[in-house]
Amino acid sequence: MKKIINDPNQVVQDMVQGMVAAYPEALKQVPETMVLARKDSPVQGKVGIVSGGGSGHEPAHAGYVGKGMLDAAVAGEVFTSPTPDQVLEAIKAVDGGSGVFLVIKNYTGDVINFEMAAELAEAEGIDVQYVVVNDDVAVEDSSFTTGRRGIAGTVFVHKITGAKAESGGSLTEVKQVGEKVVANVRSMGMALKPCTVPAAGSPSFELKDDEMEIGIGIHGEPGIERKEIASADQIAEELTAKVLQDLDYTTGEDVAVMINGLGSTPEMELYIVNKRVQEILKEKGITVYKTFVGEYMTALEMTGCSVTLLKLDDELKTLLDADSDAPAFRS
Amino acid sequence: MKKIINDPNQVVQDMVQGMVAAYPEALKQVPETMVLARKDSPVQGKVGIVSGGGSGHEPAHAGYVGKGMLDAAVAGEVFTSPTPDQVLEAIKAVDGGSGVFLVIKNYTGDVINFEMAAELAEAEGIDVQYVVVNDDVAVEDSSFTTGRRGIAGTVFVHKITGAKAESGGSLTEVKQVGEKVVANVRSMGMALKPCTVPAAGSPSFELKDDEMEIGIGIHGEPGIERKEIASADQIAEELTAKVLQDLDYTTGEDVAVMINGLGSTPEMELYIVNKRVQEILKEKGITVYKTFVGEYMTALEMTGCSVTLLKLDDELKTLLDADSDAPAFRS
Repeated sequence: MKKIINDPNQVVQDMVQGMVAAYPEALKQVPETMVLARKDSPVQGKVGIVSGGGSGHEPAHAGYVGKGMLDAAVAGEVFTSPTPDQVLEAIKAVDGGSGVFLVIKNYTGDVINFEMAAELAEAEGIDVQYVVVNDDVAVEDSSFTTGRRGIAGTVFVHKITGAKAESGGSLTEVKQVGEKVVANVRSMGMALKPCTVPAAGSPSFELKDDEMEIGIGIHGEPGIERKEIASADQIAEELTAKVLQDLDYTTGEDVAVMINGLGSTPEMELYIVNKRVQEILKEKGITVYKTFVGEYMTALEMTGCSVTLLKLDDELKTLLDADSDAPAFRS
Repeated sequence: MKKIINDPNQVVQDMVQGMVAAYPEALKQVPETMVLARKDSPVQGKVGIVSGGGSGHEPAHAGYVGKGMLDAAVAGEVFTSPTPDQVLEAIKAVDGGSGVFLVIKNYTGDVINFEMAAELAEAEGIDVQYVVVNDDVAVEDSSFTTGRRGIAGTVFVHKITGAKAESGGSLTEVKQVGEKVVANVRSMGMALKPCTVPAAGSPSFELKDDEMEIGIGIHGEPGIERKEIASADQIAEELTAKVLQDLDYTTGEDVAVMINGLGSTPEMELYIVNKRVQEILKEKGITVYKTFVGEYMTALEMTGCSVTLLKLDDELKTLLDADSDAPAFRS
């Protein structure tokens, strides 16, 4: 295992401290937790937005903490859901009296633990609502999930619910717009090379030298198919086709595109994928409103990418464009 | 070679098209060149800022094209300097009548080709000035360079000269501030794993399973020493010590810090390095003004990182903080 770390069992603690040290004016660590919150939280009168999950998906989730996006992110151990008490600490840290909204990726552990935290917070008198993001069209169930997995599309849910809360939206309004994003976002990914969880020390799966896996999850969960490596154009076509099959994007509404790198994919290659994705959308008569290319939801140093499409109405466009000062999503 | 590409000899062309397709409202490709320019260029009356070099360092350089930063970036083949005629096309595309400033990384090919382009442009009546960035303290000469190499510190030169030009600075003033950044910025890098140039098909060097290289260049050029992998703290200490030895950062001025990933290093690990770098600076009584953690100057999928410190006076702080809408450096 070649990694720039100290103790494999301390990577999350070290990372959280390194993040606060990077942005001390913007972030604070909630004492004795792996929760990073906006320095000015709780913001009185504003709905607080909390997300999180296993670590190893950076910049998700703490990179999205900032004005106009998340109020707090909870960092579990690598690829492991944070515990309910940690999520509860995040909720309490950002409750400004108008309730707290949770953005949960659809993994069994996350759903159970965030729901339990919501119940505990309700018992303490805090209104909590949530949405479960399940944008990955690859598989219906997986080793980590009942139903579809939540992957890079989650970042659009962070951005848009965050903007809605920042603009004064109520907890109900934030939930409505969160559900609207989930209903309109679809993703699909693939990988060429695996990643290694530090505490495990060896790769979580293996792929042959000429092999790729289509539909893989962001923890290395099995996808749809392993087959010979295809060209970037063919990969773009396969991922985009699956997304377009799943939702009708040709109804005259514009879309946002995200070409997401899983950790080790050179940005050059993400732009090569983007070239073909944009051509396909043009051929289908789908108008692109805005494109995001980069590492938004990674899987440690996995090599691969995902394609996400979000159908946008005027409300979603306005919220997507709204100001954010989160370190990993400035707009 | 596991890469998401089409033809290994067409990666730069495909990437450039994929970048324009991603940001059509912000970027344009100068016809029949590998030059990406601001859509609104030339901006009349403003000094134009041009940078570039071999491809494979993305987001450098085209990711830094935008209002407040570069006016154009020239993309050479992977790890290969762009030709003088390409650089000349960039200069002509962004000349708004107040001259053009070139930011050149100190590699022999880049220096020769950019200087030749400057002469050709002067012959066509365009005022051109330039700065050569040589922030890498690792080695004095290398396989690609006479003198020190230019690495991640170059991004600070882009940002600050771009802001100076945007604020109405003259060609002379832009050059002065560019030279001030070069005089005050130092970097040092290391790698755990090599990268593969697509057209070559195999890694440009090899490192044993337990080995790292200190002081390596962003094309895999030899560094100072190969030795057993150390902890993140030890790596942070060694890189930071070399930088601090080279320039007196303890004179009461604040610094900007950049922890740069070379392509495959999980963001988690960059933050772990940052934790120790910030501790060291605090121990030395050096005040950090702003920190940047991420992939700013990569080497395809090389695994490793670099540490950059920039000493800031009030002018540099103002220019570093000024607005930029470049895709890879929004502020």
